[in-house]
Amino acid sequence: MTPWIECVPNFSEGRRPDVIEAIVAPFRSKRGCALLDYRADANHNRLVVSLAGNPEPIQEALLEAAKVAVAHIDMNQHQGAHPRIGAVDVIPFVPLRHMSMDECVALAHAFGTRYHEETGIPVYFYEEAALRPERSRLEVIRHGQYEGLKAAISNPDRHPDVGEPRLHATAGATVIGARKFLVAFNVNLGTSDVRIAKEIAKAVRASSGGLCHVKGIGLALEDRGLVQVSLNVVDYEKNALYRVTELIRMEAKRWGVPVVETEVYGMVPAAALLESAAYYLQISGFSPDQVIEFKMLEMLGNNTP
Amino acid sequence: MTPWIECVPNFSEGRRPDVIEAIVAPFRSKRGCALLDYRADANHNRLVVSLAGNPEPIQEALLEAAKVAVAHIDMNQHQGAHPRIGAVDVIPFVPLRHMSMDECVALAHAFGTRYHEETGIPVYFYEEAALRPERSRLEVIRHGQYEGLKAAISNPDRHPDVGEPRLHATAGATVIGARKFLVAFNVNLGTSDVRIAKEIAKAVRASSGGLCHVKGIGLALEDRGLVQVSLNVVDYEKNALYRVTELIRMEAKRWGVPVVETEVYGMVPAAALLESAAYYLQISGFSPDQVIEFKMLEMLGNNTP
Repeated sequence: MTPWIECVPNFSEGRRPDVIEAIVAPFRSKRGCALLDYRADANHNRLVVSLAGNPEPIQEALLEAAKVAVAHIDMNQHQGAHPRIGAVDVIPFVPLRHMSMDECVALAHAFGTRYHEETGIPVYFYEEAALRPERSRLEVIRHGQYEGLKAAISNPDRHPDVGEPRLHATAGATVIGARKFLVAFNVNLGTSDVRIAKEIAKAVRASSGGLCHVKGIGLALEDRGLVQVSLNVVDYEKNALYRVTELIRMEAKRWGVPVVETEVYGMVPAAALLESAAYYLQISGFSPDQVIEFKMLEMLGNNTP
Repeated sequence: MTPWIECVPNFSEGRRPDVIEAIVAPFRSKRGCALLDYRADANHNRLVVSLAGNPEPIQEALLEAAKVAVAHIDMNQHQGAHPRIGAVDVIPFVPLRHMSMDECVALAHAFGTRYHEETGIPVYFYEEAALRPERSRLEVIRHGQYEGLKAAISNPDRHPDVGEPRLHATAGATVIGARKFLVAFNVNLGTSDVRIAKEIAKAVRASSGGLCHVKGIGLALEDRGLVQVSLNVVDYEKNALYRVTELIRMEAKRWGVPVVETEVYGMVPAAALLESAAYYLQISGFSPDQVIEFKMLEMLGNNTP
């Protein structure tokens, strides 16, 4: 089975349209690499690209795009509101189908080595691909940003995971890693009492003892007279959306408050929703192989003439 | 947007493995045409192929496969349990994405004309593509089968929709049409009283006044001590699976009988399940464009290098 991954590379360029288009171009033309979306933010001076497809073409396109970024971006001139340490700042690989997290970590490590060989840029590994425990957190690696890391990189505890302990002269360093797909999910409640949303957020999120792979806060939607439990589900396989939703519904009953609606923000893997359909419809023995679109993706992926 | 269709051509060959493989071969090698499944039944002496993909490559592959079937199948020698009038017996086109039923009907008509030009086989149009109302029903067109149609075709009310009123000497005639995707869906109930399943089937199916696009019967699953409402949902957009399920659950309450489980049999379009996930999770403003796999399919379909 051909594996499918998502990849969300972040580049430190959000202002020059010609450079942005030149960086994105390799992602458009590569068979087996689908450019889902790209967004440049001038204030952040940053470009976020969303890709999905097979690991090989995605890696090829990443190397081409990185070389364009290195040719056009000088971190010594770069300014922007978003923390960054390099022209190619972060490259997370996300397993979608027919790939385990261990395989995705191996992919990140192999790509990081090749990336360094071809660009000369030092590499740090983060999240699931971290080789030092503290580096699982991106903010630890990016501490002090490009300007601070220039000197700090010679400190052994800031040495890169691949490459010599010095930044690339113009492109800085790159953080490469593997992580799960993150689903942004909001639950809107029929009350204007924000304390209820905050209490429920506390009940369901990991940081206060709730579900291990859920982050969340309670906030008011003042113009609508509602409140929202705003969530990131960082592992939708372990904390399914139906479980999160029904847990919130159950907690809200304490105050006689209904779930008015939910929102899925941005992209979502079909599996995250199919699992909930299978739960509520009580489908027994359901297999993703029964889903036409999954089968089409596999067949089209393999059908190289 | 590139349209996506399903297509389920039926060929009158279920016994000779070499012929079966030769018919299927064009569906394997065509870019944009995914061979989902194929099943040959020796008793029926019939081959059922499931395809999904873009209309152009599917039509090209169909013409190639039809020519193989015509070269190897002589309907004068053909015997089998399943009704049939031709070597290429039936070709239904099913809209999946970015295609209306009207467009799918136009596709069936255009393909039927081209198919006749290239093979010399007379064509009947059925289901949504029928040009005469009675021909929406396949059994009307196939009445008398190949042997009976040989003479009957000269009768004006049996004239083909494309071609002269005589069968192809060895390949007979072909029925081409457009229809909705059919979801086979079973609901198993926690009772051994089959009358309850029969009563509920009556309540939900079109033929006895229930939902307009649902067919169903009640039957006993004797080895499991359960009963089953066995359904075909012939338009899952108009009669969503959650509505069918909850209607059955509600009816079953009359007898204090629980829904034990449901079964989706065979392939299903993701949309049929996503709609139910969106209902139960109360997702507001959900768009299929948010589903990564849909976006990947579109991008890969368009990404011709």
